[in-house]
Amino acid sequence: MNTFSKNLDMLDAFSALKNMAKNPYDLTAAKALGPDRISSLICSSCGYDILYGTQRIDASVLEGLQKVSDQSGAVDQFLLMKKGEIMNTIEGHACENRQVLHTSCRDVFTDAPHNPPAAAQAKQELSKLEKFLAALDAGTIANADGEPFTDMINVGIGGSDLGPRALYHALAAYSLPGRKVHFISNVDPDDAAAVLKNINLSRTLVNVVSKSGTTLETLTNEELVKAAFQKAGLDPRAHFIAVTGEESPMDNPEKYLRSFYMFDYIGGRYSATSMVGAVMLGFALGHDAFIEILKGANDMDQAAEERDIRKNPALLLALLGIWNNNFLSCETVAVLPYSQALIRFTAHLQQCDMESNGKSINRQGEKLTYRTGPIVWGEPGTNGQHAFYQLIHQGTRTVPVEFIGFRKSQYRDDILIKETTSQEKLVANLLAQSLALATGKDDANPNRKFAGNRPSVVLMGDCLTPYSMGALLALYEAKIVMQGFIWNINSFDQEGVQLGKVLANRLLDHFAGLKNDTSYNGEETDELGWAMLTAAGMIK
Amino acid sequence: MNTFSKNLDMLDAFSALKNMAKNPYDLTAAKALGPDRISSLICSSCGYDILYGTQRIDASVLEGLQKVSDQSGAVDQFLLMKKGEIMNTIEGHACENRQVLHTSCRDVFTDAPHNPPAAAQAKQELSKLEKFLAALDAGTIANADGEPFTDMINVGIGGSDLGPRALYHALAAYSLPGRKVHFISNVDPDDAAAVLKNINLSRTLVNVVSKSGTTLETLTNEELVKAAFQKAGLDPRAHFIAVTGEESPMDNPEKYLRSFYMFDYIGGRYSATSMVGAVMLGFALGHDAFIEILKGANDMDQAAEERDIRKNPALLLALLGIWNNNFLSCETVAVLPYSQALIRFTAHLQQCDMESNGKSINRQGEKLTYRTGPIVWGEPGTNGQHAFYQLIHQGTRTVPVEFIGFRKSQYRDDILIKETTSQEKLVANLLAQSLALATGKDDANPNRKFAGNRPSVVLMGDCLTPYSMGALLALYEAKIVMQGFIWNINSFDQEGVQLGKVLANRLLDHFAGLKNDTSYNGEETDELGWAMLTAAGMIK
Repeated sequence: MNTFSKNLDMLDAFSALKNMAKNPYDLTAAKALGPDRISSLICSSCGYDILYGTQRIDASVLEGLQKVSDQSGAVDQFLLMKKGEIMNTIEGHACENRQVLHTSCRDVFTDAPHNPPAAAQAKQELSKLEKFLAALDAGTIANADGEPFTDMINVGIGGSDLGPRALYHALAAYSLPGRKVHFISNVDPDDAAAVLKNINLSRTLVNVVSKSGTTLETLTNEELVKAAFQKAGLDPRAHFIAVTGEESPMDNPEKYLRSFYMFDYIGGRYSATSMVGAVMLGFALGHDAFIEILKGANDMDQAAEERDIRKNPALLLALLGIWNNNFLSCETVAVLPYSQALIRFTAHLQQCDMESNGKSINRQGEKLTYRTGPIVWGEPGTNGQHAFYQLIHQGTRTVPVEFIGFRKSQYRDDILIKETTSQEKLVANLLAQSLALATGKDDANPNRKFAGNRPSVVLMGDCLTPYSMGALLALYEAKIVMQGFIWNINSFDQEGVQLGKVLANRLLDHFAGLKNDTSYNGEETDELGWAMLTAAGMIK
Repeated sequence: MNTFSKNLDMLDAFSALKNMAKNPYDLTAAKALGPDRISSLICSSCGYDILYGTQRIDASVLEGLQKVSDQSGAVDQFLLMKKGEIMNTIEGHACENRQVLHTSCRDVFTDAPHNPPAAAQAKQELSKLEKFLAALDAGTIANADGEPFTDMINVGIGGSDLGPRALYHALAAYSLPGRKVHFISNVDPDDAAAVLKNINLSRTLVNVVSKSGTTLETLTNEELVKAAFQKAGLDPRAHFIAVTGEESPMDNPEKYLRSFYMFDYIGGRYSATSMVGAVMLGFALGHDAFIEILKGANDMDQAAEERDIRKNPALLLALLGIWNNNFLSCETVAVLPYSQALIRFTAHLQQCDMESNGKSINRQGEKLTYRTGPIVWGEPGTNGQHAFYQLIHQGTRTVPVEFIGFRKSQYRDDILIKETTSQEKLVANLLAQSLALATGKDDANPNRKFAGNRPSVVLMGDCLTPYSMGALLALYEAKIVMQGFIWNINSFDQEGVQLGKVLANRLLDHFAGLKNDTSYNGEETDELGWAMLTAAGMIK
């Protein structure tokens, strides 16, 4: 049992920070933000430089946050998690009671992994995958006409879609020649129809991803896709791959060309580096590139063990987030990558963060009196500058920002206009936004006044590569679990998704009932649901 | 000059609503949410049914909101706007001082438009476009080899990208056979490189969209794309189209195959139904489908003139938003379409809403003491259910939700599994979520308890078509401007984007300076910017 169980507001460091928050560091004051501050408040690790001089903190706040980290045992808990402690639990109440071992997916580069059994399972699946990918390359696995597979459809939802899809878009620049991936996730039939409309099925693999093997959307879409294969006279068994739990209903060699396993100690939203992401990314980018992703993630997992918050990127981001959230009362956090390739990364973080930390009770089942996970949102810059930045600069709410940027582009296909490259324009805009938010600007015209004092951090990497993408993914995973440890919540379950499922099934019963019996009336058993269906015009 | 200039908190109706907000309607109370309430709180217009029984309102609150509407003159101002009053202004301070006439783009179906000169200009551009599209169809405009154009690259950013792109994705199911559109917006050179990598330029038109003809990102990307055409031995003049202001630097027949005009009385974020969206959407969907979009938008613009908030969808959404924002203190609003085709609609709304209403001063230049525009975010359902819904159900913040759904799918390519279609599953989930948020659920296990009382509305349409998309677009445009009128802010300028631009140009000067002179040092003139560039590793 986890021995760290103090609420954030019960830590000794809490009240001192509350006091400091009454009068937080004023970035707009004379000399508050100078070159010394900018160059000294940098945390560098795993190829990233995190610039945090533009946060509303001073040395005392940093010290207080360090104490929060120490007193909450954030790093100790992170280590326990990696070693296989049952972290997914609520004391005294029924819940999943599972280990949390997504880090083991990349703890495969040493003879002494944190959790040897899980690392061994990860290695075994990686080895299966390596052979499978080699057979695709060699042409020993091919379609009925002996042609190589060029396309893959990834069928999955939530964790089996968002993280892998974000990584695919992030790294599409490095795709193997002639390989392309498509995604079907939504139970909306138009999602599948739009993909199936423009694809040569005979050259297509279908990667069906569901840990339980029972996800409604995924099974439905699998059937939709299967029907399209059968209509085209193709044998699904020769095209369909399963990524699922061992012995799930989907673990069936008669139905799938191959099965790859994920394990119940890996939560969906943390599964991008397990086989959930590996099969699709290995197909698209090749085996070696996927291993690079794992290396980046593993290096960041190591860095997250550091106890000094100024040297641990994940811990630093976690605590700055808590400062803005619990002490400066900010409700959201915007993640704004200055990299079009990261177009879906924020959507992944919405799941990883909000599903993990959108909780109201602590690990003892008690209702919390402070705020937990923020609302995470954002779009890539510079696009966002021409959209919602108006509110960030001059609106009535403070939105803490996490900027992400890279010194070099992926394609290196650039152009010099007005003496600067596009990449230089991109990074100049990123850095300028961080400064503008912090400093603000006075003006005689009240409409041209900028209040400033709006906090941001800048995460700078060299180039978005498989390695740096892996590190970035692991950075946010670790940030999120550290925040959960500090808030004393269980970041690893998701009971909040159940009620909607139950009610949806009740409504579906009515549709089925009406099909079987035109005189069916659901009003007596489900007054509210029946009224909603009627009001929505779904039944007459 | 606009005579409506009272702040929201100075309206007579304000304090009564403030009192009611102390004890708002409790949706979880016994019989609080029954069939009568669900069936009576519906606003139907232009093919949409808006179900708002799941809001925390009662008859008194509705009456109070009606008074807010009447006392603020929201509808009167909307009419003034349509007629051509200078609504884009701040009294006594330098600003754009422009009319706001995006509604004129679709006020083309009557002999008595609200603003005849603007409607005439809209008709003239539509007529030019109709001829151009007919020439493409007839093959009288073709590439150098006489082949028809199959692809279009849309180069634009902000309003010249988000709205048009959202509409293209929403309606791609209705694309003309063999026509496809690609988008380049970000100054990130990888955005252009990824598009140019996989395209047959000889069959491609390039639609360059910039009102001013001076947008940095757009001009840069235009040059990048032009270089690719020249490299391929193709004459850009035969492929490039301009959508720009008359007499802007881009209005140049020597450089473009055609120029279509937008006018300074149409703001970028409201320009999707002007030539900004028309040229690309006309190419993709055909002229008639684009006219259908305009019809839907025009019908909603008419509906927005209704004074009874229970009969005016835009006004109703505006006031429910204000109730949640200013009285129940919600900081964000989630727009959750249960339609994968609306994947980019929320990104468009982020601009339209947050750039319009992310303001802190009123139309008299005075600082406001109440909250204005919320943070708008969201992703399509059911995907979101497997991502961030955990926080919406059990997190520590209340997120008001606007659900959007349709009774029928676009492709009508569906499958029956467990006796229900995918479309039925989709809509059942949508309605179930609205109910679950409202009612919550008690449970002995605190982790399985749902507090409920979380407000939502459901917008139900029959099918997402060009007409219903036009109506939905105009619904949100009108909602946003009505909120701005009620908050007494100028929703039509965007001074908040200026500071970042100025600082970015200063940083770009340093890159240019270093290229020209290796001993260049920007530290003396721009200490902060130079420090940020150094800290970010952009200069050594």
